[in-house]
Amino acid sequence: MIEVGVNGYGTIGKRVADAVDSQPDMELVGVAKTKPNFEAHTAVERGYDMYAAIPERAPLFSEDGIEIAGVVDELVAAADVVVDCTPSGIGAENKSLYESHDTPAIFQGGESADIADVSFNARANFDEAVGARYTRVVSCNTTGLSRIVAPLQEEYGVEKVRATLVRRGGDPAQNSRGPINDILPNPIGIPSHHGPDVQTIFPDLSIDTLGLKVPATLMHVHSLNVTLESDVTAAHVRQLLEDENRVYVIPEGLGIDGAGKLKDFALDAGRPRGDLWENCVWGESIAVEGRDMYLFQAIHQESDVIPENVDAIRAMLDVADKRESMRRTDKHVGIGVPSDPSGAGREDDQVEAEPADD
Amino acid sequence: MIEVGVNGYGTIGKRVADAVDSQPDMELVGVAKTKPNFEAHTAVERGYDMYAAIPERAPLFSEDGIEIAGVVDELVAAADVVVDCTPSGIGAENKSLYESHDTPAIFQGGESADIADVSFNARANFDEAVGARYTRVVSCNTTGLSRIVAPLQEEYGVEKVRATLVRRGGDPAQNSRGPINDILPNPIGIPSHHGPDVQTIFPDLSIDTLGLKVPATLMHVHSLNVTLESDVTAAHVRQLLEDENRVYVIPEGLGIDGAGKLKDFALDAGRPRGDLWENCVWGESIAVEGRDMYLFQAIHQESDVIPENVDAIRAMLDVADKRESMRRTDKHVGIGVPSDPSGAGREDDQVEAEPADD
Repeated sequence: MIEVGVNGYGTIGKRVADAVDSQPDMELVGVAKTKPNFEAHTAVERGYDMYAAIPERAPLFSEDGIEIAGVVDELVAAADVVVDCTPSGIGAENKSLYESHDTPAIFQGGESADIADVSFNARANFDEAVGARYTRVVSCNTTGLSRIVAPLQEEYGVEKVRATLVRRGGDPAQNSRGPINDILPNPIGIPSHHGPDVQTIFPDLSIDTLGLKVPATLMHVHSLNVTLESDVTAAHVRQLLEDENRVYVIPEGLGIDGAGKLKDFALDAGRPRGDLWENCVWGESIAVEGRDMYLFQAIHQESDVIPENVDAIRAMLDVADKRESMRRTDKHVGIGVPSDPSGAGREDDQVEAEPADD
Repeated sequence: MIEVGVNGYGTIGKRVADAVDSQPDMELVGVAKTKPNFEAHTAVERGYDMYAAIPERAPLFSEDGIEIAGVVDELVAAADVVVDCTPSGIGAENKSLYESHDTPAIFQGGESADIADVSFNARANFDEAVGARYTRVVSCNTTGLSRIVAPLQEEYGVEKVRATLVRRGGDPAQNSRGPINDILPNPIGIPSHHGPDVQTIFPDLSIDTLGLKVPATLMHVHSLNVTLESDVTAAHVRQLLEDENRVYVIPEGLGIDGAGKLKDFALDAGRPRGDLWENCVWGESIAVEGRDMYLFQAIHQESDVIPENVDAIRAMLDVADKRESMRRTDKHVGIGVPSDPSGAGREDDQVEAEPADD
């Protein structure tokens, strides 16, 4: 049983905690949080042990009726691995804490790549994280791009990727962010940082990315062009992507024309928080002109990195290979077609029954 | 003096009327409108003769205190040329009216290309409209793309254009349109119709376009990639675009990061309605990677086609060549750096003084 601590219990941390808690081969030691806000109360209701991320603020929790299990030092000491889900830049400040306890740690994509031994995407480079002490799960957008590039590269070869990332201005709860009525090139300079970030996963990939921010909160949308090394058909690309469990190819006819309906679809299916862990690619959008492949995909910034964090744990501790880890993660998180949240329709229960630790 | 009638007095029509009215070689015969709304009252205050676009509704105008000069038939009969600025699809219904009076007409980009003898962009194909009876000024987005493609093609050769059009959901006054909080691939199918529309101007151009709609009203933003036929530098491309009078290269340091500040900039400069007739290209965004050129540009959907309509009039009646027509249009509309709305800083007054009809 892998003992996992989660440091930071916001948008990503609370989802990582739930995902870890759902895995039969993992145990959630507890979560660390800076203050007793609504999310802290939810954690307590879920039975998660709460640790004070800032020891001096520990009394605030008891004043608010939350009994803490200790301070973050104790969480780090007790865990086999810590998933750092603190805001960008705080992860870097926390690294010495993990080093002092000799506890392996996973950082999020908001940290710079040099914080870790390896930048990670399960589909693309699982093996590079095997045995690593420090791993960085790349950002939501980089994860979304990596999941598409990996199968394309393996199947056809990739000459060049050009992607325009139409990014949501902020998450639904980030009510101080904008823009309200504007379309912002962001950054104005080209290329954006996303291309180089994808290159932390695919070092030899030729990729140019352009970023914008718009007045929306639900998901990012990518306008993606990949010049392939071979002649292909749109139907072949579509089948390739449909075979990826972390890519949901939206069928025509469902009337899903944007992120709003995707979220409704996921909520209707009973998914926790309406999460869409998969890249959501509009099947109808997959097009090939010469060797240029195009598609639109929506990326749920709050949840697509969650399964990657779970897989990073197994890779670092070398307890399962890529295929087995992704299979377990997907099954227990519930990844698959949103209308089938159990994932059972895409799993082979016979195979599933075999592993003793699963 | 060219007698011009404007049929339709909404977002485009009112701007075309003002632009025509500002040209010393043109006279606005009048404008036709379906109903006496706020725009009709503004037209009367400006001294424009009002014609009832639907004869049966003529009494509505007098009931509302607006004395009409006649009905649309009379306007068409009196004009040397009519600019049809009615909503998409209505222009096609009006064509027989223009034919019955043997009056040349200009249609807008919302009509299908086969409505006219030629699809028109002054910078790209002025000469093709010389002597034409029916001309279609292409849409705002196609105009914006054509103004960039033309100089790039002439200077470097263009191998392929790939553009993602992040489109405003509706104009500021179109308060029944959306989306409110979403990023919609629109159309979901790739390519969008914009690429084929650009090919009505550049028949041999290889171009793929992708369209989206977002919750913004002020301007469209294009994420543009052009694979050139020669090796170039970003600085060279920038200079090339700065030499185009209908392209405004936004300098670094002005703090203009989006459409909101562009509109404020134009309004502060005293431009009518805060119009931005030029493509607004972020100078800082112009980048070259290999033979791939990238840039971001904002396109003011309400006004960028206005100077093209004025030039189309001169081309069809063959009263000025391309260079002379564009010079006159730009001078009298006020096109140039937004902080210099007179355009005087970019005009040679000596040359200007010479033409008798100007």
